[in-house]
Amino acid sequence: MAHQHPKGTRDFFPAELAALHHIECAWRTASVNAGFDEIEGPTFEHLDLYTVKSGEGIVSELFSFKRAGGDVDYALRPEFTPTLARMAAAKGRSLSVPTKWFGIPSHFRAERPQRGRLREFKQWNVDLLGIDAPSADAEVIATAIHALAELGLTHNDVVVRISHRSVVTSMLLESGLDASQLDQALALLDKKEKMDDETFLSKVNEAGLPEAAFTQFDGNTEISHPDLDVLQTELSRWGVADWCTFDFGIVRGLAYYTGIVFEIHERSGAERAIAGGGRYDKLIEMFGGPAMPAVGFGMGDVVLSLVLKDKGLLEEGDAYMPTPEVFVVSASDEGDDAIPNIVSSLRAHGIHARQSYKTTRNVGKLLTEAGKTRAKNAIILGAELEEGNVVVKNLESGEQIQVPLASVVEHFS
Amino acid sequence: MAHQHPKGTRDFFPAELAALHHIECAWRTASVNAGFDEIEGPTFEHLDLYTVKSGEGIVSELFSFKRAGGDVDYALRPEFTPTLARMAAAKGRSLSVPTKWFGIPSHFRAERPQRGRLREFKQWNVDLLGIDAPSADAEVIATAIHALAELGLTHNDVVVRISHRSVVTSMLLESGLDASQLDQALALLDKKEKMDDETFLSKVNEAGLPEAAFTQFDGNTEISHPDLDVLQTELSRWGVADWCTFDFGIVRGLAYYTGIVFEIHERSGAERAIAGGGRYDKLIEMFGGPAMPAVGFGMGDVVLSLVLKDKGLLEEGDAYMPTPEVFVVSASDEGDDAIPNIVSSLRAHGIHARQSYKTTRNVGKLLTEAGKTRAKNAIILGAELEEGNVVVKNLESGEQIQVPLASVVEHFS
Repeated sequence: MAHQHPKGTRDFFPAELAALHHIECAWRTASVNAGFDEIEGPTFEHLDLYTVKSGEGIVSELFSFKRAGGDVDYALRPEFTPTLARMAAAKGRSLSVPTKWFGIPSHFRAERPQRGRLREFKQWNVDLLGIDAPSADAEVIATAIHALAELGLTHNDVVVRISHRSVVTSMLLESGLDASQLDQALALLDKKEKMDDETFLSKVNEAGLPEAAFTQFDGNTEISHPDLDVLQTELSRWGVADWCTFDFGIVRGLAYYTGIVFEIHERSGAERAIAGGGRYDKLIEMFGGPAMPAVGFGMGDVVLSLVLKDKGLLEEGDAYMPTPEVFVVSASDEGDDAIPNIVSSLRAHGIHARQSYKTTRNVGKLLTEAGKTRAKNAIILGAELEEGNVVVKNLESGEQIQVPLASVVEHFS
Repeated sequence: MAHQHPKGTRDFFPAELAALHHIECAWRTASVNAGFDEIEGPTFEHLDLYTVKSGEGIVSELFSFKRAGGDVDYALRPEFTPTLARMAAAKGRSLSVPTKWFGIPSHFRAERPQRGRLREFKQWNVDLLGIDAPSADAEVIATAIHALAELGLTHNDVVVRISHRSVVTSMLLESGLDASQLDQALALLDKKEKMDDETFLSKVNEAGLPEAAFTQFDGNTEISHPDLDVLQTELSRWGVADWCTFDFGIVRGLAYYTGIVFEIHERSGAERAIAGGGRYDKLIEMFGGPAMPAVGFGMGDVVLSLVLKDKGLLEEGDAYMPTPEVFVVSASDEGDDAIPNIVSSLRAHGIHARQSYKTTRNVGKLLTEAGKTRAKNAIILGAELEEGNVVVKNLESGEQIQVPLASVVEHFS
């Protein structure tokens, strides 16, 4: 039997990889234009990098291993934040303020593959370190939105649902919840959306938590809080208020968030979250670095691709593949011998040049082959070669001219 | 204690990643211009994808693992050829002839890290499938050379050392070697360079092999063989003969090569091989695909980076990092409030725009900060804002003009 790729992973044939690069290009452009610098870490880390954090949910989802004969435990990277925190801690006080980093690495989760969730995926990570201000929160959100807009999405397609850990926490405590019940209450709130109101309230009662602590979040966009007012102003200043809404059902599972948390969703609720992030002001210190506030998000390629496809914004076939400037065909033995030198010279001068490998002398067939590659021009090596000339045919206009063989490269440079 | 990256892996901070991207860009440009289509596979494969091959040397160097609770064996990809063969086999007879693929994935070897060898590295893989001709061998070699030339290397810096499995094999057999001794003889030849002549000949004698079978390769560039003559002609046609030499000390450890084998080395012998490859006409069939001849090579980033650095061709610091078109500074409260909207609008229009996060009103200091980012222009939000204008300063020429706030984006578009 033929070998298969492992379950939950993907083979990217040329057209599929070109579509992924189309998305990565939007991510990279938005990041670079916003002044973020790209970083990359190892694909696997020491296992304890992931176990030191209190968010234990991730540990059961790790691919972990040892080197044969070695005794060090490693794990494939399930998310980028621990690597980023480790790298920031390694730089220590020499880190500039702010430090703006992004990355587009592969990540790995050992969970069961399902729609929108794979065992290997690409994730865009954007983090702004050193600024503890709502303007930084809004700048990071705006960067995510600029990439989505570049891909053709509008605020009618997607929404950034924003909550705030400290606002939610203080509201829970003020409505009679005990501090010892906070983690349990946040975990319940995180799952609220996945059940009907009745089931949710029965779970609240089962847990012995006060109902009023939770019902106050219903119709939650009208909740007022000074921190939210400031954030709202900043989202407007950054020109992205139309894309955002407050939603206190957003909790985010990871324990390291300390301020705003947010998720980006398809507006009608189709598919899983496109992105998730928030403020994590203590994490870099926790990894041995300086006390450094931070805000960031991760956006995977899998859900985003589904949303783009659903909306007709990700083309099928070879739409995103590079097209040749020149396709060289030969109608003679002399032409065959001349092809390598012509294409090699063109390529050495930075020109995308392909050639036919077919042995036919039928120029019509050869030009059909050139057309299939969507080449802009064909060079035809025919009888004109005896006078040292080649035919250059513009495959869009059909126009043909003769060019001396010796100046073909110059002609296309 | 602070967390460290695993031994043999690397953290790429921004300047280091930009230098890697500089190399990857040369690889990608050379591949795309030569008509190769980029592919990518999973970072880990089923372990048996690597054990089915007869080249067992690689197996001890694998990072292998199971999913917790699972019984399938996986391994981090040590090389790309098995993935490529698997993907080609999956397409079967629908593969076009030729199929020209390249990739730039991460690879992993569990061996002891040393100069030029890490446990995780990037490798450029280029493969041309479906053409069993010396011209295809030469085209693939020319593609490698175009990338090296793009990085500033010349044929005075590096050399492609080419051997030919069937030429060497037939010469060994004709000089009295028994067919059963072939593998042993090739393995010895592979190590010849790492020992002096005396040691080598004593190893040959110890193994009971005929000395004459090996001494015939001394002064090997004068060996004549019809297959080598044809290849020499093709290398000339592809314009790369100056970069190449025949060298029968090149064997390549992997058992799947069937025709030419080659390595690219720094000409004086500094560092390990920059690249290695060859023809492997049986491999795709071995992976369940159609009978399809193939030729390709892999080039890692680690040795290449060392060679480029040795020759002063890889700059230090932020040389390869993107520079902003615009850096926005404010000298007033009104300016502070206006910054987010200006930078967000510029970024939304595809312009690389940064801003100062400093609270100083000292424009001189702020422009120094702008200069450090190597920004081309500064936008200064000062007293002119009251009339709805901003100052645009060209940081190269020092020239300053006033532009209406409302047309700043247009000014830079």
